[in-house]
Amino acid sequence: MSERTRQPNIVFILADDLGWADLSVYGQTQYQTPHLDALAAGGVRFTQAYANSAVCSATRFGLITGRYQYRLRGGLEEPLVRTAHLHGLPTDHPTLPSLLRDAGYETALIGKWHLGNLPHYGPLKSGYNRFFGNYGGAIDYFTHKPGVGAAVPRDLYEGEVPVERVGYYTQLLADEASSWIAQQAEEKPFFLSLHFTAPHWPWVGPEDEHVSRDLTDIFHYDGGNLHTYAKMVRSLDAAVGQVVQALKAKGVFDNTIVIFTSDNGGERFSKTWPFTGQKTELLEGGIRVPTLLSWPARLQPQVSEQVTITMDWLPTLLSAAGTAPHPDYPSDGENILPVLQGQAPVHERRLFWRYKAQRQRAAREGRFKYLRINDHEFLFDVEDDTLERANLKDKHPAVFARLRQAWEDWNAQFLPITDEVFTHGVTPDIQADRYAPERANRGL
Amino acid sequence: MSERTRQPNIVFILADDLGWADLSVYGQTQYQTPHLDALAAGGVRFTQAYANSAVCSATRFGLITGRYQYRLRGGLEEPLVRTAHLHGLPTDHPTLPSLLRDAGYETALIGKWHLGNLPHYGPLKSGYNRFFGNYGGAIDYFTHKPGVGAAVPRDLYEGEVPVERVGYYTQLLADEASSWIAQQAEEKPFFLSLHFTAPHWPWVGPEDEHVSRDLTDIFHYDGGNLHTYAKMVRSLDAAVGQVVQALKAKGVFDNTIVIFTSDNGGERFSKTWPFTGQKTELLEGGIRVPTLLSWPARLQPQVSEQVTITMDWLPTLLSAAGTAPHPDYPSDGENILPVLQGQAPVHERRLFWRYKAQRQRAAREGRFKYLRINDHEFLFDVEDDTLERANLKDKHPAVFARLRQAWEDWNAQFLPITDEVFTHGVTPDIQADRYAPERANRGL
Repeated sequence: MSERTRQPNIVFILADDLGWADLSVYGQTQYQTPHLDALAAGGVRFTQAYANSAVCSATRFGLITGRYQYRLRGGLEEPLVRTAHLHGLPTDHPTLPSLLRDAGYETALIGKWHLGNLPHYGPLKSGYNRFFGNYGGAIDYFTHKPGVGAAVPRDLYEGEVPVERVGYYTQLLADEASSWIAQQAEEKPFFLSLHFTAPHWPWVGPEDEHVSRDLTDIFHYDGGNLHTYAKMVRSLDAAVGQVVQALKAKGVFDNTIVIFTSDNGGERFSKTWPFTGQKTELLEGGIRVPTLLSWPARLQPQVSEQVTITMDWLPTLLSAAGTAPHPDYPSDGENILPVLQGQAPVHERRLFWRYKAQRQRAAREGRFKYLRINDHEFLFDVEDDTLERANLKDKHPAVFARLRQAWEDWNAQFLPITDEVFTHGVTPDIQADRYAPERANRGL
Repeated sequence: MSERTRQPNIVFILADDLGWADLSVYGQTQYQTPHLDALAAGGVRFTQAYANSAVCSATRFGLITGRYQYRLRGGLEEPLVRTAHLHGLPTDHPTLPSLLRDAGYETALIGKWHLGNLPHYGPLKSGYNRFFGNYGGAIDYFTHKPGVGAAVPRDLYEGEVPVERVGYYTQLLADEASSWIAQQAEEKPFFLSLHFTAPHWPWVGPEDEHVSRDLTDIFHYDGGNLHTYAKMVRSLDAAVGQVVQALKAKGVFDNTIVIFTSDNGGERFSKTWPFTGQKTELLEGGIRVPTLLSWPARLQPQVSEQVTITMDWLPTLLSAAGTAPHPDYPSDGENILPVLQGQAPVHERRLFWRYKAQRQRAAREGRFKYLRINDHEFLFDVEDDTLERANLKDKHPAVFARLRQAWEDWNAQFLPITDEVFTHGVTPDIQADRYAPERANRGL
């Protein structure tokens, strides 16, 4: 098998809550991310890549199944926390790692899982041969605990066994990933999911163990700033650089697909310009994600305007590996390799989102986006009007009506959002610019 | 009188709704503003300059009186619209132009007034010898009307006489200003207030007369985008360049104080990074304004971190002109010239704001800012945390309590905010990212 036809290795790097303009190649000017910028320069940089959801675990369901996450009960949770023991990823569901393993790949997840708790769920039960990381949605970077205090157990595992490590989590993951790559056999392709928690809260940079010690609440609403956030992102950038270096040292970088993206839009310290909105919101800032793909052996460097979404990666990567989705579980996404290879044109997509908090609905078709937040509906031209300011619903009533109905039709095929479904939204008590506007003419 | 001791000319240029990062020298990277950048390079660029209010007319009351606008009934309106015939600037109140005129200056306002309607109020009744511009808060750039339709009268005046002109308003104002400057006598200093409406809505660039023709609503909630906004700001930049050129052509640029600032933070298309908030909000994005000052004869180029506010300009400019505020109307601001001349240190200020919509309160002291929005209170370190995310009220309870009480004490000396006071806030029906967060566990 020649280098060009050999199954490529795949390293899928997922950042956590990284927003649109948090990398210098996407518009951040206050700090630099040279390793990710280099990945972009040598590969594909997407300008219209979306996350399946505006929140973490929901997107991860979409990623690992290649389908709208609303087909699974756990995918409705925003995010999966309280019912992680009940509504994890069913272990009999075909997944990106299980399908790649079936196609001959060695598989590993290093980092965050967030698709259901032990003993019922876990990466080793869903297609990964190896796991090092955390099962839940967030851990502190130094204590590796999902909360604060001596009583809180660590969430750090080797497979299904709790372990203790010393160090900054982003660095630990980079080290684990690098050595796992170095250990891989020459003759077998590998699939590594490297799911960082950076730059998710708490706001702790690599030199900030004292901040970790002083934390009173893992959500860290009384901490953080842009300087700390920059340190966290730059540390993530360096970690990616280390992994790329490991691939190069092994001589496999050219025929390795390296993907870098985020699970949802940016959180409170993220720069999302020229978008508005953030994690938990279906505004572009909550779902448009920086996305890079490097595959030197097969893809020319390019900036791609192809609209794409998290669940496209399953059919895309299976195609690259010479296999396909399970026939009983067809993907809701599509294989975008032909577009990237210049064998198919950049084309329009019709994509949908829903989010329980603020009863949000969104649909994108061509340049238009239908958006509902609570009782208010909008039609935006998100190509011209990235900030989603000019409501065109009365200017283009037919488009508005079509997308509104299309959303209803789309939604009808999925599990309903019931009272039991958990959702997290931004609230006025914790974020000043998410106040509840009052119309009342009250005094001060 | 030598050039160095001669009273300087003063050109006070006010932009309308220009936000923090809308100029390239303040962080805009998607277009350039070379004329304003040049003004910054040769003068003072302020990094902590504030507007007196998060809305237009209120700041203008603060500017022209040099005092907190809450001392005057009209200053309470947010903005002055419905009662502009009742609550304009009292004509017997000393003003920046009247005090400069008394000190020997020729005075003119070219552009927007917005401090009360004819026949009771107007620039010619409050210290300006000459006026060309609009009396109200906004006009279309081509029709020069404050609304849409044949029945709406133009709001464009020469003094107190309605006039008709053809052209883009930003350009008309630049032309008027340039020729007024050219006409000034050599021996008399002049004070020109050049108050552009750019880049206030409607979203109409210099080549967009067709947009103006198709407008259905002057608020233009169904139009605009970042491209159009860029054209409006670049046109404003070119207009400033034209006026600077007129000063240079006359040979008076060196001993002319040119100030460029904005009346409040950015509106819906403005870039306010690294701040959050916008016009009508007391978050930094609603009140921190780009501010430049050029006076080559007397001030070294510098970036100044001095905290300053609109009402400082009256004592500052009167000092530069060798005069002082009226003793019965002392300024609530301060003369910042000694700081800019290196004769006094950069120092902390204690400044206050209030805004009726969302019952907002704000106080800045040193690096801290107390903020209340509706029922939620915050303490931010706005030097470290420009986005106003980390609520420090429980970490610094003494600072929080002190600023909270200081606001109450400060507020007690001003006119109360009654039911009759008009206020405008951003509402969920017109701006998608200003939804009213719901906690209820409702289905889609």
